Amino acid sequence: MPSRPRFSFSTLRGFQQPELSRKLNQVIKNENAAIGAHEKAGRERVSIASQLSDWGEWTEDEAVADISDKVGVLMSEIGEQEDTFAGYLEEYRIVLKQIRDTENSVQPSRDHRAKIADEIQKLKWKEPHSHKIDILEQELVRAEAQSLVAEAQLTNVTRSKLKEALDIHTAAVIERSEKQTLLARHARRLLNSLDDTPVVPGDSPREYDQGSITRQILEDAENDLRAWESTTVPIHT
Amino acid sequence: MPSRPRFSFSTLRGFQQPELSRKLNQVIKNENAAIGAHEKAGRERVSIASQLSDWGEWTEDEAVADISDKVGVLMSEIGEQEDTFAGYLEEYRIVLKQIRDTENSVQPSRDHRAKIADEIQKLKWKEPHSHKIDILEQELVRAEAQSLVAEAQLTNVTRSKLKEALDIHTAAVIERSEKQTLLARHARRLLNSLDDTPVVPGDSPREYDQGSITRQILEDAENDLRAWESTTVPIHT
Repeated sequence: MPSRPRFSFSTLRGFQQPELSRKLNQVIKNENAAIGAHEKAGRERVSIASQLSDWGEWTEDEAVADISDKVGVLMSEIGEQEDTFAGYLEEYRIVLKQIRDTENSVQPSRDHRAKIADEIQKLKWKEPHSHKIDILEQELVRAEAQSLVAEAQLTNVTRSKLKEALDIHTAAVIERSEKQTLLARHARRLLNSLDDTPVVPGDSPREYDQGSITRQILEDAENDLRAWESTTVPIHT
Repeated sequence: MPSRPRFSFSTLRGFQQPELSRKLNQVIKNENAAIGAHEKAGRERVSIASQLSDWGEWTEDEAVADISDKVGVLMSEIGEQEDTFAGYLEEYRIVLKQIRDTENSVQPSRDHRAKIADEIQKLKWKEPHSHKIDILEQELVRAEAQSLVAEAQLTNVTRSKLKEALDIHTAAVIERSEKQTLLARHARRLLNSLDDTPVVPGDSPREYDQGSITRQILEDAENDLRAWESTTVPIHT
């Protein structure tokens, strides 16, 4: 081996992702952006809900005020569910990182084996009768054994953690969806309490009498949300 | 009325939203940000899906490759549904703008009536016996009649368009949720085809035999998505 320092691929190590985890790192990075987008969507939804309620009150139309306020309550909860969803995605992302970390930890044992095999080839070409070849070949057997273990570990971790990660992700999609559906269905019931039969100019405004009905709808929504239970079939491992 | 130019509230007109539509404009503006967040979430989801599939292929583990590819297909469709949802929110936002535009169009008739009433007050103080007072009072009656019509129009448009807007919004929440639930449930079926029983170092890899099962799951998902029908109860008007 040349003793003077030379340019080699290994001098770039530390400046770039090891090849082994580069692809999964891309997923992990973009998942961060996706999570941020869901968080933002949730935040905006919560703030729009309260602005809608404000606007409704300001119209001085009792019917519009009541409906926009109560739809606002449900819309705000839809936003909270979006935020909870982002939290679950973060959990899933952490499990992906465990696969990535295992990929990274396997890299040195691959490198080590490749380096010894490389040295043997060089030596066979330069000093075909060197006794160092036998020693290196014994070392290669040990490196291969270590590598076999590392690769098996990688396979096991990858499969079980991928399953775990996607279990969390898909269960989160379902939970968010079912809860938001439930809230939106109650919001639609509220809309039926808004009478939009045209008023005639100068008519005295019809009295708004839906307050107790809409209060009951909000209570129903709250109870349904509290009673929600996951119906997802567990993933078997 | 003083004839020299003076600072007044009306000189700011055009530089700021008329008070009447300010609150709804805030909702419309933030809704734009919320829509953008859902679009971004959808885009990221689609691109992560293809990166996940790439990564899986690169692991050279046939089981991981197949599952990550097929989960990727469903995940990508989940992203498309997020984008479709953003499109519906844009439709809902356009209906909110119709309320906002009506609010704005009512402003001049309110201003006009207020201006005449104001002039009458001033004239009564400055020239209590002016015959112009009678003329202005007749004008005020006409302005009040016009204003009554405008306010009735505003009430009618606000109620019916609010109902229409929230009908679109809530139906969109439900459609996205039901379709994403459907896709996530099939994704969970795929996960059950990934055997994560630990492998022992040096074992020959178990043959992957789930390909026809996972292909069938994708087909089921496609059929279910195509057969999806809205079960939302129409809003009565």
